[in-house]
Amino acid sequence: MQARRARAQNLIVEVLAVGTELLLGQTVNSNAAEIGRRLAAAGLDHFHQAVVGDNLARAADAISRAMDRSDAVVLTGGLGPTQDDITREALCRAAGLTMEFSDEYAGRLRARWAARGREMPESNLRQAQHPAGAVLIPNPRGTAPGLRIRVGDTWIFALPGVTSEMQEMLDHQVVPFLLDESGRAGAVVHSRLLRTWGESESRVAELLGDLFDRSENPTLAFLASVGEIKVRLTARAASVEEAVGLIDPLEREIRKRLGPLIFGADAQTIEVTLAARLVERGWTLATAESITGGALANRITETTELSRFYRGGLVTPEVRSNGIGFELPLAETAERRLSPEESAVAMAREAASRLFADVGVAVTRAEESESSRREAGRVIFAVHSPEGARSTTLILPGDAERVRAYASTAALHLVARAVSRESRA
Amino acid sequence: MQARRARAQNLIVEVLAVGTELLLGQTVNSNAAEIGRRLAAAGLDHFHQAVVGDNLARAADAISRAMDRSDAVVLTGGLGPTQDDITREALCRAAGLTMEFSDEYAGRLRARWAARGREMPESNLRQAQHPAGAVLIPNPRGTAPGLRIRVGDTWIFALPGVTSEMQEMLDHQVVPFLLDESGRAGAVVHSRLLRTWGESESRVAELLGDLFDRSENPTLAFLASVGEIKVRLTARAASVEEAVGLIDPLEREIRKRLGPLIFGADAQTIEVTLAARLVERGWTLATAESITGGALANRITETTELSRFYRGGLVTPEVRSNGIGFELPLAETAERRLSPEESAVAMAREAASRLFADVGVAVTRAEESESSRREAGRVIFAVHSPEGARSTTLILPGDAERVRAYASTAALHLVARAVSRESRA
Repeated sequence: MQARRARAQNLIVEVLAVGTELLLGQTVNSNAAEIGRRLAAAGLDHFHQAVVGDNLARAADAISRAMDRSDAVVLTGGLGPTQDDITREALCRAAGLTMEFSDEYAGRLRARWAARGREMPESNLRQAQHPAGAVLIPNPRGTAPGLRIRVGDTWIFALPGVTSEMQEMLDHQVVPFLLDESGRAGAVVHSRLLRTWGESESRVAELLGDLFDRSENPTLAFLASVGEIKVRLTARAASVEEAVGLIDPLEREIRKRLGPLIFGADAQTIEVTLAARLVERGWTLATAESITGGALANRITETTELSRFYRGGLVTPEVRSNGIGFELPLAETAERRLSPEESAVAMAREAASRLFADVGVAVTRAEESESSRREAGRVIFAVHSPEGARSTTLILPGDAERVRAYASTAALHLVARAVSRESRA
Repeated sequence: MQARRARAQNLIVEVLAVGTELLLGQTVNSNAAEIGRRLAAAGLDHFHQAVVGDNLARAADAISRAMDRSDAVVLTGGLGPTQDDITREALCRAAGLTMEFSDEYAGRLRARWAARGREMPESNLRQAQHPAGAVLIPNPRGTAPGLRIRVGDTWIFALPGVTSEMQEMLDHQVVPFLLDESGRAGAVVHSRLLRTWGESESRVAELLGDLFDRSENPTLAFLASVGEIKVRLTARAASVEEAVGLIDPLEREIRKRLGPLIFGADAQTIEVTLAARLVERGWTLATAESITGGALANRITETTELSRFYRGGLVTPEVRSNGIGFELPLAETAERRLSPEESAVAMAREAASRLFADVGVAVTRAEESESSRREAGRVIFAVHSPEGARSTTLILPGDAERVRAYASTAALHLVARAVSRESRA
């Protein structure tokens, strides 16, 4: 309690997940990490996380404890339609509230099911229940609404356990509300994300080491994800403009040091960057993939901007597959003894011509014999464009699953470089 | 406390992770899940998990609270050599103990570094400190030893945050010790997971409602993930055989009620189930996907068993794409005015014939004009097999991203049903 009183002007937020599957280890509590990241970015204090099972008494007890020591409690999970979804009841018990029923939300639920041409099982009406005085937080991605309620001097939020639904409510409802409550709505935490590819995290950290040690506002952080290293600059200030003013000089210095390693900033993922370069050239893209088995096509089509320039793809589980587009080059391989690199180039060319695209990219493995674990990481990429073709061989880390992820990322970067007007490198 | 006294013969174990990186969401607390799995497998009760930052006062407070309500506390993290590794101090403060120093372990640390031909930074000697009365748990995989100490009537274990080191100690030291203490070495918790597809979670829960209310051992739980509803039966008994004996009758009743909705059990995912049915028929599979954009091929090739029967796939971002395999059916569509369902069937047939597979599956959208958000969920599936072809139209929930996920799951299930000898439905 001391801690709490002491910093009354900055809210202390606690996270409590409800779900036996978390205690049994059948699900990892990644929601808590997601929430932690967002609270940190918003500059809200966050000292405790807890997990309790689908047990009414223990859940109610955990909620009471959280209410005692924090100004706001974010509950996740237990809002579904089944009997083991007990968060609403636990909230009533902990706060000494009665359960009410929202005809209005019940109507929305029925309409939602009707829109899918199905009749709603009555049990779903549990989701229209809420502790007296709670405000329902709409759930655009699912059926279970979130809840917001004030108990004593504590704000309690109950969010669904489904990550995408939870994130949506957190970003658009909970965090803005808490910033407002903390009277720091004006104060902002602004970040710039610089995205790099082509060097290891330790190498990037080395190049920026002294900046990392010196920087307090903005702070520097490194985030690594399947081959891409992100450098995050985070400034706290009275306004976005002021924060940007603090970030800009440091960003210039970092860009000077990392140069072409940086391919995009903030929301400019490699997909978005590649789309922009394809627009510039007026080119379209086709894929031919073996070891990534559709992961590359999947990433391309998940990005609206990029999918516009995508003519389609060929997935063949094995290099020697006689799948469409591969008879020719593989025949060549056999007859004319093409090197693995040459047949990768042929795959890329075939994909482009058969799918009527300007640019073709191929992701493959040298030979089937190399599909052994030891060699799983050796991947051959080829890009065919109106300006010519080139192949690249990379040794990618990790097991088969990670290699798939690294390989599809690498393929997008290699295409982006081949399509770029600047670096022909 | 009541709960605790009530079941004195079965130990209640609590997990407390120490680490600010967890609160900031820079690290996901997968250790808690690892520990939870092991405690469940050992049949030890586990009702609470908590996370606290590298703050001495709050860590000590969290340890005291855990001691109050549990018979054993497993701490992870905060045992390293740096100033922010505060678990040892927090333990002393919570238990009112003084800190001691182990010359013997200090010697082992020095030897370890010497063996690597390096001189040990003095800061590492922090790792030779321990609360008075604690037993050091050797760490074969790292430098920080674990700790075991009895405080009042609670056993406390402090383990490193590094997963591999933590697991080693848990499996060989902590769990065996706790089973011994509980006098129940040999007791087990055994689960059976029944996997369903085709009905909503609320509908499945309705069909099993009375069973859910009645069942105490085994207990029933529902888990939902992109269209699949899992029913988990968990029994506690003296042996696996006995647990299975408790589960079997309930499972039979559930199978009677859910019938063909159940497609697999335990590790039998839909991919594994489909692979088994393809083996039985000696058939191979090819895909043609528009709105799933490679997600279906990706899921198939991610599963070793299933990828063996996969001849490849065609990805075309638009139904009207002139990509390989679609000229013909789309020409038909234009000339002979095929219905959306008929052209989906043509896509499936084309995929099978062009990729030399026995079975072809197509996932598409009725018309481009329907690519509007409202209609995003309306998906047409077609399966072509040696026994004929059929199309199915489903309205799937959520945004485009979720529709992709639901659609690739649905495609696998529709193929599995078409390939099954039993249900021709």
